[in-house]
Amino acid sequence: MKQLINVPETVVADALRGMAAAHPELTVDVENRVVVRGDAPVQDKVALISGGGSGHEPLHGGFVGYGMLDAACPGEVFTSPVPDQMVRAAAAVDSGAGVLFIVKNYTGDVLNFDMAADMAEDEGVAVAKVLVEDDVAVTDSTFTAGRRGTGATLFVEKMAGAAAQEGAPLERVEAVARKVAGSARSFGVALSACTTPAKGSPTFDLPPGELELGIGIHGEPGRERRAMMTSGEIADFAVDAVLDDLAPDGPVLALVNGMGGTPLLELYGFAAEVHRVLAERGVAATRTLVGNYVTSLDMAGASVTLCRADEELLRLWDAPVRTPGLRWGA
Amino acid sequence: MKQLINVPETVVADALRGMAAAHPELTVDVENRVVVRGDAPVQDKVALISGGGSGHEPLHGGFVGYGMLDAACPGEVFTSPVPDQMVRAAAAVDSGAGVLFIVKNYTGDVLNFDMAADMAEDEGVAVAKVLVEDDVAVTDSTFTAGRRGTGATLFVEKMAGAAAQEGAPLERVEAVARKVAGSARSFGVALSACTTPAKGSPTFDLPPGELELGIGIHGEPGRERRAMMTSGEIADFAVDAVLDDLAPDGPVLALVNGMGGTPLLELYGFAAEVHRVLAERGVAATRTLVGNYVTSLDMAGASVTLCRADEELLRLWDAPVRTPGLRWGA
Repeated sequence: MKQLINVPETVVADALRGMAAAHPELTVDVENRVVVRGDAPVQDKVALISGGGSGHEPLHGGFVGYGMLDAACPGEVFTSPVPDQMVRAAAAVDSGAGVLFIVKNYTGDVLNFDMAADMAEDEGVAVAKVLVEDDVAVTDSTFTAGRRGTGATLFVEKMAGAAAQEGAPLERVEAVARKVAGSARSFGVALSACTTPAKGSPTFDLPPGELELGIGIHGEPGRERRAMMTSGEIADFAVDAVLDDLAPDGPVLALVNGMGGTPLLELYGFAAEVHRVLAERGVAATRTLVGNYVTSLDMAGASVTLCRADEELLRLWDAPVRTPGLRWGA
Repeated sequence: MKQLINVPETVVADALRGMAAAHPELTVDVENRVVVRGDAPVQDKVALISGGGSGHEPLHGGFVGYGMLDAACPGEVFTSPVPDQMVRAAAAVDSGAGVLFIVKNYTGDVLNFDMAADMAEDEGVAVAKVLVEDDVAVTDSTFTAGRRGTGATLFVEKMAGAAAQEGAPLERVEAVARKVAGSARSFGVALSACTTPAKGSPTFDLPPGELELGIGIHGEPGRERRAMMTSGEIADFAVDAVLDDLAPDGPVLALVNGMGGTPLLELYGFAAEVHRVLAERGVAATRTLVGNYVTSLDMAGASVTLCRADEELLRLWDAPVRTPGLRWGA
């Protein structure tokens, strides 16, 4: 529960100063809280912009770069960014080919991105939007009407980003983003609560010996609490919850995502169990990404996101990407 | 303190099964606990082998691949691997150009790699060894005579790996490894203890409101305990401890490393403070890597490693690398 911070009020600004120091290839506007590709605007390329509350790093700032996002707008911890940030980002990255807003389904995010879209359009920017609402755990939750946006965001940002990098026009990039958002589902589990800088203590109580199934990425309540389960039992529950909803009829891409506080050693063990369950259900995982990508500060736990992978999406997934948090290919 | 595991006895094997599932480009021998580049042995290339207790992931298995390690030998959690693992790894990766063992300075690791070197040489493999002993916090500690081997291991594996990938012969790769090991120093801080699977509870007591300065990567005692400090105060202490010993007369490479349980948001904020201190001391950090690389399970905290960077080392650092845990370049 102790935190490596100065004061809660400067946590986001401090982190942005650190990103600026570590990643000279990015342009980080600390004051206005916008992280931009250093080479933006990229001529004739559709620009991708996402954002949301801080505390989920590397999402979204860590996904800014070649083949993924053009800009990210971080809010305060677990708090929506404001429309001015998105408008400023749009002005910085729009080459004239338009921008796509990638929005996780939280009421504040949706509202503020909507407002920003209107404002940017008033300034002559063509704006498309895609909503990510992949969490099958619950419908309507704290901060959310409908399903929450979680791990699928990474797939949307990666694959729509690849399409944009290849030169696809705005309608096509938007269509890819919608296709991915419609093809990916998630389920998360918490073994511990997270601690926000402002509160300084765990955001909810999770007694020793219990876990929460279907947790959101801010510690929103899930489906149920149970006595602690093994990694294998959790994988059974989480993968089945996703498969029940997704019903893939072919191979999938898998994200075995840590919530922040669970060691990589344990995440890889969990990935083995996720693969076992998928094999038992006759589902092939053609790609598996394991690590802390869509986190919830120091929460212990993990989520599973599966994305139906046809040839097009597999190609877009494999396309080169160069960001602080995700990087492969030529 | 709750863990995403099946039973403590299978944690390492489970993680290796997960690595095999997620990284088809690696050859993972789960039974014998050896992780090998899928294309090994690489013709005419010196092979790099490292290993150590598990619980520090992505070190070492996550650093196997093009431009870094050829093989890694994971022991039980916080327990040295056995000589048979290194001998088996050497047989799998030696192309005839010889192997370099990269050994963190822990008594068990040193002993077992020494024994393995003798055994491999008996089988006709040319073996060189380099010891990493970079932690300036204390001399002689739990498990260690002399200084502990910590974050500098990443620099040694990366830069010696780049030299080997370029085709340097064994003596040259060994010389690079020694040069890097002699050019890098570290200092770590714990805000919380870690929890090993076997124990299931924190390995030491760190009261609320206190931190441990100079911690090792297994929770070995550090220099002193103090009342909780800000990120900026910790950066002052850690960077000065490293600079006092390293006394760089030019630019450095910086690793701002998370111990596992500290969110990336906080690590970036800490990186900003590390840069501030370096700037105040007149030291330029030409490259800064921020993230969880040499971890201690779920311990909260961070370490700073600085490496003197002449032209040669900067070139080897920037050279392409493709591993699960570190990846950049063409």
